[in-house]
Amino acid sequence: MNKADLFRQIRQKRSFLCIGLDTDIQKIPKFLLHNEDPVFAFNKAIIDHTHDLCVAYKPNLAFYESLGVKGWGSLEKTVGYIREKYPEQFIIADAKRGDIGNTSGLYARAFFEKMQVDAVTVAPYMGEDSVKPFLAYPGKWVILLALTSNKGAFDFQFMADASGERLYEKILKTSVTWGSADQMMYVVGATKAQSLEEIRKIIPDHFLLVPGVGAQGGSLEEVAQFGMNDQCGLLVNSSRAIIFASDGEDFALRARDEALNVQVDMEELLLEAELI
Amino acid sequence: MNKADLFRQIRQKRSFLCIGLDTDIQKIPKFLLHNEDPVFAFNKAIIDHTHDLCVAYKPNLAFYESLGVKGWGSLEKTVGYIREKYPEQFIIADAKRGDIGNTSGLYARAFFEKMQVDAVTVAPYMGEDSVKPFLAYPGKWVILLALTSNKGAFDFQFMADASGERLYEKILKTSVTWGSADQMMYVVGATKAQSLEEIRKIIPDHFLLVPGVGAQGGSLEEVAQFGMNDQCGLLVNSSRAIIFASDGEDFALRARDEALNVQVDMEELLLEAELI
Repeated sequence: MNKADLFRQIRQKRSFLCIGLDTDIQKIPKFLLHNEDPVFAFNKAIIDHTHDLCVAYKPNLAFYESLGVKGWGSLEKTVGYIREKYPEQFIIADAKRGDIGNTSGLYARAFFEKMQVDAVTVAPYMGEDSVKPFLAYPGKWVILLALTSNKGAFDFQFMADASGERLYEKILKTSVTWGSADQMMYVVGATKAQSLEEIRKIIPDHFLLVPGVGAQGGSLEEVAQFGMNDQCGLLVNSSRAIIFASDGEDFALRARDEALNVQVDMEELLLEAELI
Repeated sequence: MNKADLFRQIRQKRSFLCIGLDTDIQKIPKFLLHNEDPVFAFNKAIIDHTHDLCVAYKPNLAFYESLGVKGWGSLEKTVGYIREKYPEQFIIADAKRGDIGNTSGLYARAFFEKMQVDAVTVAPYMGEDSVKPFLAYPGKWVILLALTSNKGAFDFQFMADASGERLYEKILKTSVTWGSADQMMYVVGATKAQSLEEIRKIIPDHFLLVPGVGAQGGSLEEVAQFGMNDQCGLLVNSSRAIIFASDGEDFALRARDEALNVQVDMEELLLEAELI
């Protein structure tokens, strides 16, 4: 899938929503625990009830790894299910990986060959050779961490050199030479929406994956105001606020309601920007 | 296990060797592929033939994840085997994880509760709240990336602020306040051995995990010269040079020979430093 394909999906669905499948087994409805694979049963219901309202799903690996082999199995089943039933969806493995070159190549093999997701989030600290192996797969994407949504983002990401250039800006400027805007996106937290204006000067054309709307307090309107470009250029993620809207029998319907609320807001923003 | 326990092991084994279990299924002896779990069979043989020569084992997660559910199973079996048969070994999950606080908490659960390793390598980019959840487990360790052994380390890690302080130095100075030297180590690549002298001024007491000796070209003597402290303070890792010394029937014996060569050099260095 390239940038144009993604924009086509956004126009068709009238949504740039990415749903985070942060499926914590301690938070899913109790009645699901009787299933052989409760995590997959939960994900399947969420996906079946929301697929027409979003363009992407983003399982965060931590939630699956915390269950060991069984969790890894639930993740593979979830990705396989989306791939087969909703092939238009863009699937992001939120893994924040990154290692020396030959080792990153094995992570790329894990996510792009073994699991067949479309994109992997990658941490930039180890530099070019830790990112490049992921870019060797045609049609696949690296989503590099730039400015994250958490408090700890202020510890190092805003460090400035003598010329005033910040670490996350240096990462943007350096990494754009590693691959095209059809294979690289950046993570920019919604809680840092004002920085989006500056970031758009450095990377006007790239898609951004924006976490932090909803439970973390970021504003969708601000993200659109400062971050949208002429191909939308945004995937805005919401996890907990949608998938854990209810822990009752109605959890999937309530998740749909929440996703629909976000989609309606997004449709309005796309109309205002004259993109649909 | 705390710093004193680790030093006790080092004195007893006369070694500060960590063996990297970077078990690439494409590189293990062909005759092992007939086993039900070739990766575990390989690891078990390597461990049985080297456990008296090293103080730590470090499986890198990428090699296991590249095999999906089956790989995750091989990893759990490997960790379980070491835990049961050689409980004195320090086990490091080389995972380079890091995410927003509540999500890092799930990675901590994966590695410290589900898998029961002693330490996890963590990427620093997302700051304090991405590291703290790992430090909530008594007796467990975070090994934070500081200066990595690869070429890409020069892309961002050496970035300097207006006062000349480099990113990796800022990470060291900031993060030492997050936990004690009994629960935090740092990754410093052997290929950057000259930087060790400067690093030791910032963190004189912490253990360092040093990759890059062997296949990557770093020198053990230089690492000891610039990095050793009065509790040794070093775990020097070697992966490929030991575990893939041969791809024949004799692979485990040849791995032992290579590990023994390193152990003999390390014993010499410990004697010179009057630590044994």
